[in-house]
Amino acid sequence: MIGARGSIATCVAYGLAGLRDGLLEPIGIATARGPLADLDWAPWETFVLGGHDVCRRSVSESAAELVRHGILTSDLVVASAPDAAAFEARVRPGILDEPDVGFADLDPRASRNGALEPRAQIEQVVRDLTAFRAENALDAVVVVNLASTEAHRAERPEWADLAAFESALQEGRMQPASVLYAYAAFQCGAAYVNFTPSRGSSLPALRELAMQRGLPHCGSDGKTGETLVKTALAPMFAARALRVLAWQGYNMLGNRDGEVLSEPAHRESKLRNKGEAVRAILNDPELHSHVGIDYVPSLQDWKTAWDFIHFEGFLGARMSLQFTWSGSDSALAAPLVLDLVRLSELALRRGEAGVLEHTACYFKAPLNGGTHDFHAQFGRLIEYGHRASKPARTGR
Amino acid sequence: MIGARGSIATCVAYGLAGLRDGLLEPIGIATARGPLADLDWAPWETFVLGGHDVCRRSVSESAAELVRHGILTSDLVVASAPDAAAFEARVRPGILDEPDVGFADLDPRASRNGALEPRAQIEQVVRDLTAFRAENALDAVVVVNLASTEAHRAERPEWADLAAFESALQEGRMQPASVLYAYAAFQCGAAYVNFTPSRGSSLPALRELAMQRGLPHCGSDGKTGETLVKTALAPMFAARALRVLAWQGYNMLGNRDGEVLSEPAHRESKLRNKGEAVRAILNDPELHSHVGIDYVPSLQDWKTAWDFIHFEGFLGARMSLQFTWSGSDSALAAPLVLDLVRLSELALRRGEAGVLEHTACYFKAPLNGGTHDFHAQFGRLIEYGHRASKPARTGR
Amino acid sequence: MIGARGSIATCVAYGLAGLRDGLLEPIGIATARGPLADLDWAPWETFVLGGHDVCRRSVSESAAELVRHGILTSDLVVASAPDAAAFEARVRPGILDEPDVGFADLDPRASRNGALEPRAQIEQVVRDLTAFRAENALDAVVVVNLASTEAHRAERPEWADLAAFESALQEGRMQPASVLYAYAAFQCGAAYVNFTPSRGSSLPALRELAMQRGLPHCGSDGKTGETLVKTALAPMFAARALRVLAWQGYNMLGNRDGEVLSEPAHRESKLRNKGEAVRAILNDPELHSHVGIDYVPSLQDWKTAWDFIHFEGFLGARMSLQFTWSGSDSALAAPLVLDLVRLSELALRRGEAGVLEHTACYFKAPLNGGTHDFHAQFGRLIEYGHRASKPARTGR
Amino acid sequence: MIGARGSIATCVAYGLAGLRDGLLEPIGIATARGPLADLDWAPWETFVLGGHDVCRRSVSESAAELVRHGILTSDLVVASAPDAAAFEARVRPGILDEPDVGFADLDPRASRNGALEPRAQIEQVVRDLTAFRAENALDAVVVVNLASTEAHRAERPEWADLAAFESALQEGRMQPASVLYAYAAFQCGAAYVNFTPSRGSSLPALRELAMQRGLPHCGSDGKTGETLVKTALAPMFAARALRVLAWQGYNMLGNRDGEVLSEPAHRESKLRNKGEAVRAILNDPELHSHVGIDYVPSLQDWKTAWDFIHFEGFLGARMSLQFTWSGSDSALAAPLVLDLVRLSELALRRGEAGVLEHTACYFKAPLNGGTHDFHAQFGRLIEYGHRASKPARTGR
Repeated sequence: MIGARGSIATCVAYGLAGLRDGLLEPIGIATARGPLADLDWAPWETFVLGGHDVCRRSVSESAAELVRHGILTSDLVVASAPDAAAFEARVRPGILDEPDVGFADLDPRASRNGALEPRAQIEQVVRDLTAFRAENALDAVVVVNLASTEAHRAERPEWADLAAFESALQEGRMQPASVLYAYAAFQCGAAYVNFTPSRGSSLPALRELAMQRGLPHCGSDGKTGETLVKTALAPMFAARALRVLAWQGYNMLGNRDGEVLSEPAHRESKLRNKGEAVRAILNDPELHSHVGIDYVPSLQDWKTAWDFIHFEGFLGARMSLQFTWSGSDSALAAPLVLDLVRLSELALRRGEAGVLEHTACYFKAPLNGGTHDFHAQFGRLIEYGHRASKPARTGR
Repeated sequence: MIGARGSIATCVAYGLAGLRDGLLEPIGIATARGPLADLDWAPWETFVLGGHDVCRRSVSESAAELVRHGILTSDLVVASAPDAAAFEARVRPGILDEPDVGFADLDPRASRNGALEPRAQIEQVVRDLTAFRAENALDAVVVVNLASTEAHRAERPEWADLAAFESALQEGRMQPASVLYAYAAFQCGAAYVNFTPSRGSSLPALRELAMQRGLPHCGSDGKTGETLVKTALAPMFAARALRVLAWQGYNMLGNRDGEVLSEPAHRESKLRNKGEAVRAILNDPELHSHVGIDYVPSLQDWKTAWDFIHFEGFLGARMSLQFTWSGSDSALAAPLVLDLVRLSELALRRGEAGVLEHTACYFKAPLNGGTHDFHAQFGRLIEYGHRASKPARTGR
Repeated sequence: MIGARGSIATCVAYGLAGLRDGLLEPIGIATARGPLADLDWAPWETFVLGGHDVCRRSVSESAAELVRHGILTSDLVVASAPDAAAFEARVRPGILDEPDVGFADLDPRASRNGALEPRAQIEQVVRDLTAFRAENALDAVVVVNLASTEAHRAERPEWADLAAFESALQEGRMQPASVLYAYAAFQCGAAYVNFTPSRGSSLPALRELAMQRGLPHCGSDGKTGETLVKTALAPMFAARALRVLAWQGYNMLGNRDGEVLSEPAHRESKLRNKGEAVRAILNDPELHSHVGIDYVPSLQDWKTAWDFIHFEGFLGARMSLQFTWSGSDSALAAPLVLDLVRLSELALRRGEAGVLEHTACYFKAPLNGGTHDFHAQFGRLIEYGHRASKPARTGR
Repeated sequence: MIGARGSIATCVAYGLAGLRDGLLEPIGIATARGPLADLDWAPWETFVLGGHDVCRRSVSESAAELVRHGILTSDLVVASAPDAAAFEARVRPGILDEPDVGFADLDPRASRNGALEPRAQIEQVVRDLTAFRAENALDAVVVVNLASTEAHRAERPEWADLAAFESALQEGRMQPASVLYAYAAFQCGAAYVNFTPSRGSSLPALRELAMQRGLPHCGSDGKTGETLVKTALAPMFAARALRVLAWQGYNMLGNRDGEVLSEPAHRESKLRNKGEAVRAILNDPELHSHVGIDYVPSLQDWKTAWDFIHFEGFLGARMSLQFTWSGSDSALAAPLVLDLVRLSELALRRGEAGVLEHTACYFKAPLNGGTHDFHAQFGRLIEYGHRASKPARTGR
């Protein structure tokens, strides 16, 4: 996990421990409840967690904060302390993304990594991943990007194909950290999941590398809260042939993610993904739609969003639907991460290369596009489940 | 249209006139916008409206009220006055349902009809429908029940099959008006659509009759507002494996429908349909769920509903989604009625007998059950559209 | 505290300990922050808590539940354990109110007390209060009713004056427990605060007794949440000369209070108080107003209420205001209890007898009536503060 | 009325006609309903309306739009057509404010006026006002600024006193139009009401002029909707000693006002007033508070605002109150304008000079400051009413 000391990774770590010990039910985990539960998923007992982070605070400090914020219970944190300590011991200094200087509790080693040549950065990550696999005798490694949203970068010609990208590396041109991690993951034969809006494996150059190596990847930007509701509701307006006049969404959040997003360059990455889904589902590129994100520190990890949908029915009658969503982003994201790791591991086992299109329902901006309609996306995951549950044909 | 002078029928009448004259866009009409628009639907120009009602106030009085309430525009009402007058001339006195005595502006002829023997009641409706078809030289007749919700009636043994039902008629046992209209419709070779929670064609006896005569029918209880949103949202919680702890829904409405529903016997019919959908989609028969309906006269035709959904995510975190729906029930219902008439007419033309299962997305309590998941229901309508758009095979 | 093991009393006990130890800020306590803070209030250090309860579960069990529900922090509960144990040791078996038989964890001694003759019941409470005062060497005692809402009782002639009431006691006629506690409190020279909708000291007979003994009392029914907001907002509509058409309020709560209120007889007591305030402030006895209370167990101590206010402005324009309140009833009530104890103790010291009219802002149904306008009520408390802060005149 | 063809002025004109003809009730008019109704107010029959505007569209075109948007009824517009035509005939070309060039339907005469020297601009307005008074034989004239919000201007030294201001005029330095109108009004012996956030009579120079001439004035920025609710609710949190952690307000509006406010320079004027009130009432200059305004064209004149208030109670418990306000800004503003004209006319009659402090409850930024607590402000208006209703003392 990149961002291994953040809120989501901390929830993944304690949550996994709780699942193993029978302290938690697998609520929110689609691979463990409902129609997908019977597939041949990797059991929780076989998971080993590790990761990178650029901050110094420990996983148990993050956990203490999540207890204060009412996300984790102190019972779970106490019971899972040994697992958490083992996980902490496997976290390595990350690579600081260039525009992110100035954070409060930066690990100086991450700053040093951030100042290396890109090829040296990649080598560092490859070394860490290789050691992680060897030390834990793992059959498969899945790298999941859970770091804070990176500053938005404009398209670059060097991203267009693998050769151009590798020349740029050769010339020492700095790259977004999320891209370097993805490159290193593919170098090591790992799958890659981009749960953030950062560039990650979305570049054509990296897609080419994944295909070359026969490795699966997916992303971008986990669909956890307000966007999930939007993409569940918008198809209803389309199906009923109603005319949406305006869709306004106001998000407030108070954790580190909110703080990072209060900077315009980082916010831009996020808002791009949030705005498009509704226009696409409603097939109205001119739809009046606004998405705002405000940092409200007192909310801590509890995101609150208000959406106002103004629409026209028959006879010109104007109506509205408004909703308020109040949820813990980390507690919503963690089970999706567990699902995606299972889906990636299964794909590695089944030899699936390239973008895992059946994971689109997990993302705000699925790597290969397609519909944003959540129900249609979920339908494809179910279909994949049917395919994957069939016994392999003879001779394969 | 049964309930031909009510708000929905009035919206259908002026809306149809507005569509023909190009004054209105077909917003809210799925057979006219979107993926179903290309089927071989009956054109608006060929529709002739008639109906029954138990009240005396005229269609144009209803229209004036809807203008005051901001549903119809005065421009449309003025422009469509000739069409409305022609429709008014085709409305006949209805059959008063027994428990409904005491309404303010009852047509005394409807009261007299209500006091007849059931067989005489049926004959009366058959005469009206036969004359309507003949006078207007119609190829097909579709009877749509838009009357106020009837008082709930317990199951009766005589409803179990057609022979028992006809014996009961023979013996003069009074029947709910919605049932008599359905029986008469099938007698005349008409299709029947039950847009209300009343019994209508849902009785096994009437289903048998429809099959015998090779006639299509569908119902019950139009899915226009809060329940529509519920059945669009609940599948999201199921797909994400979240645990819904409570789903509370509070409805307020102010029109005649609200007044009728403020009587317990009538409300019971309605609430049964509203409560079940969510429990079924979430596959949790024990779900704590409450649906309330309150009469708030000042809201007139504008229904406002607030739903509160309390749910648990991973790690025991408790979250909520709440929504406020504010819509005009009549303006939402009228385009669904136009869709259902087109679907019924197409079914008559294609020789489809029995319950039109592909119309389930239009109803709170589809006659043949099935999933309440709106998106899955709509998917079936789309599939039907694909089948129905294929050219007939040779030799058929 | 009557109901000494309930959620509010538990919050009072741990909250008081936290205030003394500097672990908590006095948020929500008007006698400690803001314009009233400088009066000569009894300091927290001098408070000694005791009480009665009819249930067996301990204060620390209640506290554990409040930790699970996110109201109390485990840090506070651990730090205050000695204070809580001392309080627990001062709790005595209460008097079961007749219609309340059948509760799960009833203390059999409370059931026995409930079966005694009323005069024996009073003697029991008097004995407990006298011992409490003596053992703790207290200057003043304030009895606060925090028990669950009692079943509603119709007016009785014997309540009209003290003589009639005492004859009824003599004849052994059973009385509501809240009334018996109030009688016993006045017998012992204690002040009495009724924080519930139960009858308590509201009977003319008991008012007479309080005057006779020169004792202060106040009530009824703490104004903690939705009603507080209502009485803060309604004056705005009145001042702006707007016409409120409908005020609908839907309350959901999940704690023991909610469970008790799900029984019609108990709910009636509550709803009476909640409905009247708005009609009174808007000076419109015919206002269409509805207040509902639903038991939603998953909400635990977190009450959620939705109010919809439909109003008419100039030109007949119809508008709305809706609000959602989400708060912990116990955490809102506890500081009001601390305020009321301080106000009662000050009144005892100043020799004020009868109803403390300046406490009206704390109650849904102030004992001596008066405006429900929260701001006007609070203005009177401020005025009292000015009067009470002046040095006593010579010769008094 | 400056902005005589805008939505508010149009509502004032038709509303006044409706009041005179008995077609409307005086809802929303505090001088006509409630405790202030009995003062010696100028009767509606004596009002004569006139004004200035920089746009060409007629009052009846504005009215037609307001009918389409559901604010005015066509019945009222038809019945009041003669009054509206007479009003229209009294509207004169206004003075275009410099930064406002580029509007769609500008009156070229207003553009020409906008290009004149400031002294010539003032003379033009003075001529118009003098003629208006003479032609209609009026006892008193009240100038009300209802124009769209002007671009924000930084403080200027020339505004500090009347002499400096008049030197600046002498030197031909351009001034905001709202300031020129106020200067001209005072020149003519008229009262001045600034219902907008523009500078108007707020400059020390103009306050000096008003005192010199013995004329009353008031402003700024009518408190019609979301801010009204805020200033009615915030005192409740203060009185209960609760700690507000964050107050977020999101406003959406779709009329010309919304369009103008979508430009940053104009929005700044507005947001300054909206943000301060809550911090002041809660006495917390550091309060995390955000106010947003978004232009949502489909909402037309119907403003919708959502506020989220996050607060802390006792024991650290975090709670929230959220509200959605949905109202017609014009229908809310028009009755306040009628009130303010009556209050200004009474002040002229009573010889009150300078800022009318008792009108603070009508404004987001009262000219002489003071509390923003709506209830306290309204209390002062009531007190003024008591003073003004007493018979004049002998010898005065």
